[in-house]
Amino acid sequence: MALVKVHGPPMSTAVSRVLACLLEKDVQFQLINVDMAKGQHKSPEYLKIQPFGQVPAFQDEDITLFESRAICRYVSEKYMDKGNKGLFGSSNPLAKASIEQWLEAESQNFNPPSSTLVFQLAFAPMMKLKQDPGAIKLNEEKLKKVLDVYERRLGESRFLAGDEFTLADLSHLPNGQYLVSRTDRGELLTSRKNVGRWWNEISSRDSWKKVVEMQNVKPAKA
Amino acid sequence: MALVKVHGPPMSTAVSRVLACLLEKDVQFQLINVDMAKGQHKSPEYLKIQPFGQVPAFQDEDITLFESRAICRYVSEKYMDKGNKGLFGSSNPLAKASIEQWLEAESQNFNPPSSTLVFQLAFAPMMKLKQDPGAIKLNEEKLKKVLDVYERRLGESRFLAGDEFTLADLSHLPNGQYLVSRTDRGELLTSRKNVGRWWNEISSRDSWKKVVEMQNVKPAKA
Ligand SMILES: N[C@@H](CCC(=O)N[C@@H](CS)C(=O)NCC(=O)O)C(=O)O
Ligand SMILES: N[C@@H](CCC(=O)N[C@@H](CS)C(=O)NCC(=O)O)C(=O)O
Repeated sequence: MALVKVHGPPMSTAVSRVLACLLEKDVQFQLINVDMAKGQHKSPEYLKIQPFGQVPAFQDEDITLFESRAICRYVSEKYMDKGNKGLFGSSNPLAKASIEQWLEAESQNFNPPSSTLVFQLAFAPMMKLKQDPGAIKLNEEKLKKVLDVYERRLGESRFLAGDEFTLADLSHLPNGQYLVSRTDRGELLTSRKNVGRWWNEISSRDSWKKVVEMQNVKPAKA
Repeated sequence: MALVKVHGPPMSTAVSRVLACLLEKDVQFQLINVDMAKGQHKSPEYLKIQPFGQVPAFQDEDITLFESRAICRYVSEKYMDKGNKGLFGSSNPLAKASIEQWLEAESQNFNPPSSTLVFQLAFAPMMKLKQDPGAIKLNEEKLKKVLDVYERRLGESRFLAGDEFTLADLSHLPNGQYLVSRTDRGELLTSRKNVGRWWNEISSRDSWKKVVEMQNVKPAKA
């Protein structure tokens, strides 16, 4: 069987979400570099597989997919019997609904402020772009409110969707990691009792440690 | 069997997304008003069922859920055999993956600029809030780029995920409707050949026309 293919650099949060999922599911993959500095993600050829010109793009046999969370759902369904079998729940609609609810909370509530903070605090200086103090303040306030809700939830439950680590938790790793390791706002996560406990547990999984290693390796020339 | 319950006003885009799904699936529901003008969505009682203090919240027998797109997925799975059976695809992982991909495109790419435009152009004046011309311009540019991708997609396919109307299309109705009927930027959708054709088709479904009627009725006093 041909390996599944992931197009994009592991440094991208959306790419690393997919890599974490593939590693949890023990699905072997081929990583194909997309040289974003050279604008390769906007090339006509790449736009054929990702029409919005973003990374990642994903290929498995005949199928081509974009959107990291849709790819994670697909991988978890298609490779149900491989690796971490509970990653996307079982056929129990209640368990599945709870995962979907917290996966949406990540996409709708956690991702917008956390990705803005990561961009402003870690990437803008690296790219020599001017920071926007107003955006930093606003999004820190927003993220605090979101994490207050998480703090209560994680006081009653080991993981977001219940007793098991699932896609809902996994999806927080990319932005959470940069917030903790590349900005001075990591305390937003680590200083909260339950969120901190949860963060330590999910970020020390072997699958995620592997992704962080991949992020710290410079990509080979294309 | 007790009816499922939806908490929140039909005028809210996230509530109307869930109502459209329930009507497509022919699942009867009880609508429970949440008086947002009085801040009822931030009351301790309401926060027990929607911890982020937003509408909608949803109840079905023992389960309480939030996040409109998670609720739509749950309803489509649980009531698989009722109403529109193809709304969330079949057990075919390829069909499901395409729906998820375009449902994520709505949530990640279409929703942020379209909901900002709807807020700025329709709701801000109604609420006597100052408009932000910079935000309007930026989000109009963003939405145009997203709709350029949709235009190409809908040139090769009748609906976003393929030949059938699915959750992926449905999820665009709430913001699309306000953009077309309550702002002067409806042409963003209607002037594009394929997007316009698709918009006419999805917005004239009986389920959606019913939701629009509900939006135009003033809620009874709580
Ligand atoms: N919602 C998309 C987001 C993808 C995304 O934003 N990718 C970024 C890198 S993390 C990108 O390609 N940015 C370049 C661009 O938007 O031009 C997903 O989850 O896959
Ligand atoms: N991602 C949520 C969004 C819910 C949402 O933003 N609801 C709005 C009304 S459309 C709301 O409750 N706003 C009040 C607030 O945020 O305080 C969903 O899809 O259910």
